[in-house]
Formats: sequence, C-alpha cells, structure tokens
Amino acid sequence: MIEIERKFLVTSDAFIAEANQSYPIKQGFLNTDPGRTVRIRIKGTKAFITVKGKGNTSGTTRFEWEKPIEIVEAESLLLLCEPGTIEKVRYEIAIANHIFEVDVFKGDNIGLILAEIELTNENETFHKPNWLGQEVTGDPKYYNSQLARHPFLKW
Amino acid sequence: MIEIERKFLVTSDAFIAEANQSYPIKQGFLNTDPGRTVRIRIKGTKAFITVKGKGNTSGTTRFEWEKPIEIVEAESLLLLCEPGTIEKVRYEIAIANHIFEVDVFKGDNIGLILAEIELTNENETFHKPNWLGQEVTGDPKYYNSQLARHPFLKW
Repeated sequence: MIEIERKFLVTSDAFIAEANQSYPIKQGFLNTDPGRTVRIRIKGTKAFITVKGKGNTSGTTRFEWEKPIEIVEAESLLLLCEPGTIEKVRYEIAIANHIFEVDVFKGDNIGLILAEIELTNENETFHKPNWLGQEVTGDPKYYNSQLARHPFLKW
Repeated sequence: MIEIERKFLVTSDAFIAEANQSYPIKQGFLNTDPGRTVRIRIKGTKAFITVKGKGNTSGTTRFEWEKPIEIVEAESLLLLCEPGTIEKVRYEIAIANHIFEVDVFKGDNIGLILAEIELTNENETFHKPNWLGQEVTGDPKYYNSQLARHPFLKW
C-alpha cells in the first residue's frame, strides 16, 4: 500500500502528558537504501518486517509493506542488520481525529524527537498541537534508515 | 534456522526424465549483500520473503529465514528489487532419501544449470547421480543474489 505521512520536529515535552500510550521500539535495517528499505522492528510485544519504497517528490507518500513476525524471529534478524540499531520510545497522542506518533530517540540519536501523522490524502488538514515544530517531511536525514547510519549525535 | 546445503554444476539434461515435479521461479533481491540477502520469490503458485546471512567458511551452512507472503504482495515487492530479476525452472528429483533441486536458468543466466541438495549435517553422505558435475558450494558467484548482478552470460 501507499502510506501518506508528514513528519515534524517537536519543540517541548508537553506531548508526554497528552499521550494515550507509550512503548519501546527497537529496530534495525537489512537495507538502508531509501528505494528499498527493509526494516526489522520490535514494537512493545509485537514484531514486524517492513519494506519501504522511494518517496514521491514531496516525500509525503511512500510505498510500504509490512508483515507481523515472531519476536524471536525479529531478534535473529536484528543480528544480521547493518550496524546502527535504532532505539526509541514511542508516544501515541490522539488529537481530534488523528493520531500523532512521537518518537523520543535514545543511544546515538539522543536529543532527537520526531512526530509523525498519517493522513488519508496529501491535502488533508489536521490540528497542530503547540509542541509541533518545523516540518521535516521528505528530508532523508530524518528517515530512521538514515538515522541508523548517520545518527543525530554526529550531525 | 541454519540451512546446510551443497551446490553443484550439472553436466547433462538427464535429470529431466527423473524429475518428480517442476515449476517456474521468479525472484528478485531487496539486498544482494551476502551478509544480509533479502529475496522476494514467486515459486509456482506460492510466494515468499527470505533473508539469508553470511555463509560459514566452507559455504555449506547459512542462516536462512523465510515467510510465506501473497503473490500480489510479491509482485509489488519485485518492483522495488534491485535490477536483475532471476527467472528459472526448478526440477525436483528424489534420489535415495534426498531431494535434488535442479535450477535451469533463463534470461541473462541462460546456459547455467545448478543442482542443490539440503543436508541435515555437514558430513552427511548422499548418492551422486551421473549428471552431477563440479561442486561449487560456497562460491559466491553462484549465489542467486550475485547472478542477479553479474549474470552468467556476462562472465
């Protein structure tokens, strides 16, 4: 399927008080090529393999295919991933009829906080909470695949 | 899991008369790195995503993880693969208590015929049919991932 997402920096930790849930995410990449990203992710008590294609010009839409796998499978596959595992805590915040996913990065990406919202079409409007900062949609350096190779602490 | 396999060239087409079944295979790679190969395969009426790790020194054993997917999913994912799709016909030949899988390559690998046998341990013995030629186990140039990039016709 095609995913339509927009991504923003986050300017304060006020989102934490509004979060409906949070869970740890650990992920690695079997390929960080933006045209054929292959991600292994453990998300709370679930695990997935995800393939993403190249984004469109604006970076808003991107092919995405995902399949649930067992956590033990994910752990074996993470051992094969390229160096640079991503660890972060995700907060889910319901605002109006949308869910913001806010990722607080750890390890070599500590200090980075990113918010994402999934839309049903590219022009859909949404309420912007006051902790939402600059939009970074489509900027490859904020792709998790690129953060694995070129972490925030080394920018 | 760890796969134990040996691979051979094939010296005649005598195996065809002994085949129990045959089916077409079409496959592409989301990563051809031998340390983290990601393969999308349509095999007859089934489809799979497969991840393989680096082989051991002899090339006999290799980590392999495989998951069935839908054919329509495989077709979408093949579009994202690196250039160089592999097409071949596979023949399965039961000999004593083993199955030989013989792949007759098409396209840019036409002329190449490879036989593989899966073993339960590295030292297991097996009957060698008279159409079995030189062993090429562990030679990276016979990996399908490498045949996708450097096809037989260009050797």
